Amino acid sequence: MTVRVTVWNEYRQERSDPAVRTVYPDGIHDAIAAGLREHADLQVRTATLDEPDAGIPDGVLAATDVLTWWGHAAHGEVPDTVVERVHARVLDGMGLVVLHSGHHSRIFKQLMGTTCDLKWREDGRRERLWVVDPSHPIAAGLPETFVLPEEEMYGEHFDVPPPNELVLLSWFEGGEVFRSGATWRRGRGRIVYLRPGHETHPTYFDPNVRLLIANAARWAGAPGGTRPTYHHVQPVEPPG
Amino acid sequence: MTVRVTVWNEYRQERSDPAVRTVYPDGIHDAIAAGLREHADLQVRTATLDEPDAGIPDGVLAATDVLTWWGHAAHGEVPDTVVERVHARVLDGMGLVVLHSGHHSRIFKQLMGTTCDLKWREDGRRERLWVVDPSHPIAAGLPETFVLPEEEMYGEHFDVPPPNELVLLSWFEGGEVFRSGATWRRGRGRIVYLRPGHETHPTYFDPNVRLLIANAARWAGAPGGTRPTYHHVQPVEPPG
Amino acid sequence: MTVRVTVWNEYRQERSDPAVRTVYPDGIHDAIAAGLREHADLQVRTATLDEPDAGIPDGVLAATDVLTWWGHAAHGEVPDTVVERVHARVLDGMGLVVLHSGHHSRIFKQLMGTTCDLKWREDGRRERLWVVDPSHPIAAGLPETFVLPEEEMYGEHFDVPPPNELVLLSWFEGGEVFRSGATWRRGRGRIVYLRPGHETHPTYFDPNVRLLIANAARWAGAPGGTRPTYHHVQPVEPPG
Amino acid sequence: MTVRVTVWNEYRQERSDPAVRTVYPDGIHDAIAAGLREHADLQVRTATLDEPDAGIPDGVLAATDVLTWWGHAAHGEVPDTVVERVHARVLDGMGLVVLHSGHHSRIFKQLMGTTCDLKWREDGRRERLWVVDPSHPIAAGLPETFVLPEEEMYGEHFDVPPPNELVLLSWFEGGEVFRSGATWRRGRGRIVYLRPGHETHPTYFDPNVRLLIANAARWAGAPGGTRPTYHHVQPVEPPG
Repeated sequence: MTVRVTVWNEYRQERSDPAVRTVYPDGIHDAIAAGLREHADLQVRTATLDEPDAGIPDGVLAATDVLTWWGHAAHGEVPDTVVERVHARVLDGMGLVVLHSGHHSRIFKQLMGTTCDLKWREDGRRERLWVVDPSHPIAAGLPETFVLPEEEMYGEHFDVPPPNELVLLSWFEGGEVFRSGATWRRGRGRIVYLRPGHETHPTYFDPNVRLLIANAARWAGAPGGTRPTYHHVQPVEPPG
Repeated sequence: MTVRVTVWNEYRQERSDPAVRTVYPDGIHDAIAAGLREHADLQVRTATLDEPDAGIPDGVLAATDVLTWWGHAAHGEVPDTVVERVHARVLDGMGLVVLHSGHHSRIFKQLMGTTCDLKWREDGRRERLWVVDPSHPIAAGLPETFVLPEEEMYGEHFDVPPPNELVLLSWFEGGEVFRSGATWRRGRGRIVYLRPGHETHPTYFDPNVRLLIANAARWAGAPGGTRPTYHHVQPVEPPG
Repeated sequence: MTVRVTVWNEYRQERSDPAVRTVYPDGIHDAIAAGLREHADLQVRTATLDEPDAGIPDGVLAATDVLTWWGHAAHGEVPDTVVERVHARVLDGMGLVVLHSGHHSRIFKQLMGTTCDLKWREDGRRERLWVVDPSHPIAAGLPETFVLPEEEMYGEHFDVPPPNELVLLSWFEGGEVFRSGATWRRGRGRIVYLRPGHETHPTYFDPNVRLLIANAARWAGAPGGTRPTYHHVQPVEPPG
Repeated sequence: MTVRVTVWNEYRQERSDPAVRTVYPDGIHDAIAAGLREHADLQVRTATLDEPDAGIPDGVLAATDVLTWWGHAAHGEVPDTVVERVHARVLDGMGLVVLHSGHHSRIFKQLMGTTCDLKWREDGRRERLWVVDPSHPIAAGLPETFVLPEEEMYGEHFDVPPPNELVLLSWFEGGEVFRSGATWRRGRGRIVYLRPGHETHPTYFDPNVRLLIANAARWAGAPGGTRPTYHHVQPVEPPG
């Protein structure tokens, strides 16, 4: 079954910051999309903030089964209408895969209801990830542990609601730990947060990270149940 | 250990609608507070929408371990600043017990991140509640099932995040079911939703409902862990 | 992706009890298997208690992605070795879909760690089911509510661990409610419990129930993460 | 409210192994009990394997609100009858706090339904713990992170059901992480697992660990809901 993925990227630092451009010359979205395109069942398009309607007008969202979200420096520039549109679409059944610094995006904070704050440090040292739920499809094909040789550190406490499923934990050289792969349900939509992916490190070229994002897209993009009805109703069972 | 409870009520329909005033002549908050005052370890005050700062200025919130919230007709009149203040205080550790039509309050929707929609019908028929988590302190002292002879119906789907704990289910004569007692954690705060309590029924005089609210207040108002720190940090473990 | 399903049935009452044989002349397993065979991606075989190795020798289990389990009168006759073999295989990644009276099977009780007790009544009255997690793939294609005109009643409290996901609730004419569709993870395996299916009612010919079982099989049978290693290990990170 | 705690210990290695006796001359149970006795609301007794009925005859269990369990070398010597008695008592509402190597105890494995396997290494290096649920009462009074200068390492994957609540994560110098403080509900009982506490390290004299165990005992020992009834029942609602 084909899953239609839209890869959204803020796409600012790649254009303004040479250190970022060196790592992601065609944008972070391009690297993410390339990883997803390795999977024949994923049909991939990209969208960026400075396109009309932030690249995701209603028509695009309606034709999107799962949206991946990378943002960092311009969270505040995502318009209210875009946030509301994505929010409504997630509750209506679109999957959402939030990546790395997307933890502070408006859409993620609105869906979580918390600050989504965390500890961080750009030290470029090692991150080691561990699968703590080996029954989960988003861990399919991953080794039980793998290393990213250089990454930004994110440390607990991560101020999100307790995940419905916790799949990955991270260990950092500086002594921190982090819930790095986690899921939540909101309305008819499934949400995944995946920690790795700082803009100055080639994380989105890493084969394990690419597999993880593809698994997450497939998992969050699968169809769920019928749209419920709400508000005033008549009894469904007759008076006795 | 004393738990400081603030009972918040919109307090409009009791003043404007004779049918409501007949049931709750001194306001819904007064009936809820009276039930809580049966418990010596709960220290109770009330607050209503039309008081200055909606009855809950910073000083009151700072001295509140758990806030109960009843609103219905005037959710939209709760000012932004009040919603933000309560939101911040919940994330900082205050408990919140949302009652009945409070499911559509701004504060509950902001904390949940969903529409909090449901089905409803004012038929005044029977509601039967069942304890489905007999290990939970908010069910302490409750029978395994009890009846409210007349209540408004609320039916699934209830558009909230999957609860962290599901304690009560309701059965309605018209064929509906509902997750009527449930909990969530957000930041350092614990949140309880309790379904019963329509303004035209004497639900807040029912001994089981009163016990349930007292249990919920005690549970949500207990102290949790230390306030975490966030943002940029130095390593806690030295380089090897 | 093909999912290999083994449909296990005790297959005793259909042979000994004319009232059951009338409803399921070829056995409950045959009706369940027929429903699953409507789905091209499910590869279905059946197995019954009185076959050698209870129909599920190691070779069969090794070639099974998901096992469905129906038992009732002969739970105690399932040999220890079979229970242990299925238990080990679930922890190693096989899905398990436990049906109706299978709640008291040895394998389910061993995986749950609780009594799995419940209330019951063979009254043949109406059961109404509601989807309470419309994001879940095991609800795909189901209406938000549907009726089984005659079923055995199962009522709360259902003594199982709190499900990891709660998908369906049931309403019964006699006043009871039940968590009728729920999931748990154990080791690398995913477990689903589906309530409907008494031997004297034609439940396994119902299109919604058939779709539900197929969805559950597909969901529980999907591959998860790599098999973890355990016991004594060397450090994965060198001393600094 | 007083919570009656029984501190159970295998109490073998302290008598047979000088290295252990040096750290815990009066037994691990004595050190744990001493920590609990710092709290006026906890009423503490101890029990050990080689006492009659393993120190926990029915009368003791009936008068126990929460049982803490430490075992290591003699899990297999705990008699069936003792395991069954404790299991039944937990399902009936007694709290259980399982400590360190108690992860492989018969009672914990029976309640979990999984192998409870993990990775381990007796390297006596640093463990750093982080509170990841600052809303939880078992973290009350703990700093957001604390260190045990020397401990045995336990690493993921920890083969337990996904916890209902995850409170603590551990970081180890060798690169591993672990879910070190977690809770589960089974029947009317609440279960806590706390990782720290190897017999050759003075962990049970650490103030943070002592506070953690006291918090866990208080949390798991609080009363829950009424005992449910099971099996055959008459309708609770009359035919219409």
